Amino acid sequence: MAEEGKIVTAAMLVIGNEILSGRTQDANMHYIAGRLNELGVRLAEARVVRDVTEEIVAAVNALRARYDYVFTSGGIGPTHDDITADAIASAFGLHIDIRDDARALLEAHYEPGQLTAARLRMARIPDGASLIDNPISTAPGFRVENVFVMAGVPAIFRAMFESCRHDIAGGAPLLSRTISSELPEGRLAEPLGLLQERYADVDMGSYPFYRGQRFGTSIVMRCTDAARLDSAVAELKASIVELGGSPHEGDPPA
Amino acid sequence: MAEEGKIVTAAMLVIGNEILSGRTQDANMHYIAGRLNELGVRLAEARVVRDVTEEIVAAVNALRARYDYVFTSGGIGPTHDDITADAIASAFGLHIDIRDDARALLEAHYEPGQLTAARLRMARIPDGASLIDNPISTAPGFRVENVFVMAGVPAIFRAMFESCRHDIAGGAPLLSRTISSELPEGRLAEPLGLLQERYADVDMGSYPFYRGQRFGTSIVMRCTDAARLDSAVAELKASIVELGGSPHEGDPPA
Repeated sequence: MAEEGKIVTAAMLVIGNEILSGRTQDANMHYIAGRLNELGVRLAEARVVRDVTEEIVAAVNALRARYDYVFTSGGIGPTHDDITADAIASAFGLHIDIRDDARALLEAHYEPGQLTAARLRMARIPDGASLIDNPISTAPGFRVENVFVMAGVPAIFRAMFESCRHDIAGGAPLLSRTISSELPEGRLAEPLGLLQERYADVDMGSYPFYRGQRFGTSIVMRCTDAARLDSAVAELKASIVELGGSPHEGDPPA
Repeated sequence: MAEEGKIVTAAMLVIGNEILSGRTQDANMHYIAGRLNELGVRLAEARVVRDVTEEIVAAVNALRARYDYVFTSGGIGPTHDDITADAIASAFGLHIDIRDDARALLEAHYEPGQLTAARLRMARIPDGASLIDNPISTAPGFRVENVFVMAGVPAIFRAMFESCRHDIAGGAPLLSRTISSELPEGRLAEPLGLLQERYADVDMGSYPFYRGQRFGTSIVMRCTDAARLDSAVAELKASIVELGGSPHEGDPPA
């Protein structure tokens, strides 16, 4: 837990042409957003960049200066297009080479003769980085300062995140409640705007939904103070009733 | 079609706390990546930012200076958290207010008395912007110079994209072929790296797959020159056979 009341922030950097070309749909950003919330960390920005060293370096340096944590996905495999480890070393001005601890992991994992030069690239780790355990396919991720470098394959990304989550110091957990009703967004907008003005500490988002024949609006309220959140929710429900709607706790029934 | 041989680039800017909080999984980036490819435009970067004016302004200005086109999603509804239109005006230094042409669209759409002050916010359009048609729920998107401002709800985002796609001048279409085999990435990596060195104009990506009991690697090759692409693919297939694998055109069978 970080110091009392501090808001802890994070950014996600997705690295890979396959996401930008539409070949692959990123799933890691959504996963980490939810997990970070549970740990009291707010994902504040995300970027997707190509497999181009200068772009990775620029994005990492912009994000690590601005947020408490940065998580990257992708580009740490054995092929020529896997350039993330070297780009991270470059962003921090660190030397990088095949490191003995990472090599030992790979040597224990592969059958004799199978640890090719290409696979050995996965042991390229910047000096001073700590390794992130990969319980699925062995080749490790790594952490340098506030930057966590992880694989893009979702199962491995998740396993690596779980390996290092105890190193993440969260802030005050963000409590969240969702109130749905059949009222359209355009009718709720004015009372909601007035409510937001009086509750500057409660983040209020409005999300219209369309599900089959049902439509309406879900309002999401988020705050670190439970009493303030309860109070804002109570006022919102009263406004919905006053407008002739029926407030429903949670998302609309499917 | 843009000038011969020019590579046309685009960026996507997703605006909204709901994506970063994990409440909603973005679907628009993946959609537009695929559609832009078909139009000969390469999605070169994507960012997700919060509903915070300064962050939207900074991201729009960074991206519009760098890429041929910028597409934004989210934040153009009627509620207090919908601040995209005003942020875009601010990014371009344009005046913004309720505009008569957009107001006329909304007046024609809503029943008398239903065009509330909140809904009228959806007619806030920067001076000089051209409107983007919204065949689903009427409230328009808009375009300022190379920036296309669209809704976040996926069905509306897609409809708006189709409304304006004839205004997008693509470059040379990027041809793509995928070759899969049961060879693991670590065995293919070396011949692939050598092939990439000899075909600098062919973008080669390597993607391991795990499907049930099947695993292996898909290699994606992309190039604007069909003959060069064919030649690179033929060499790759020969390498796979030489390593004892069976090359398969396309993704691995499901």
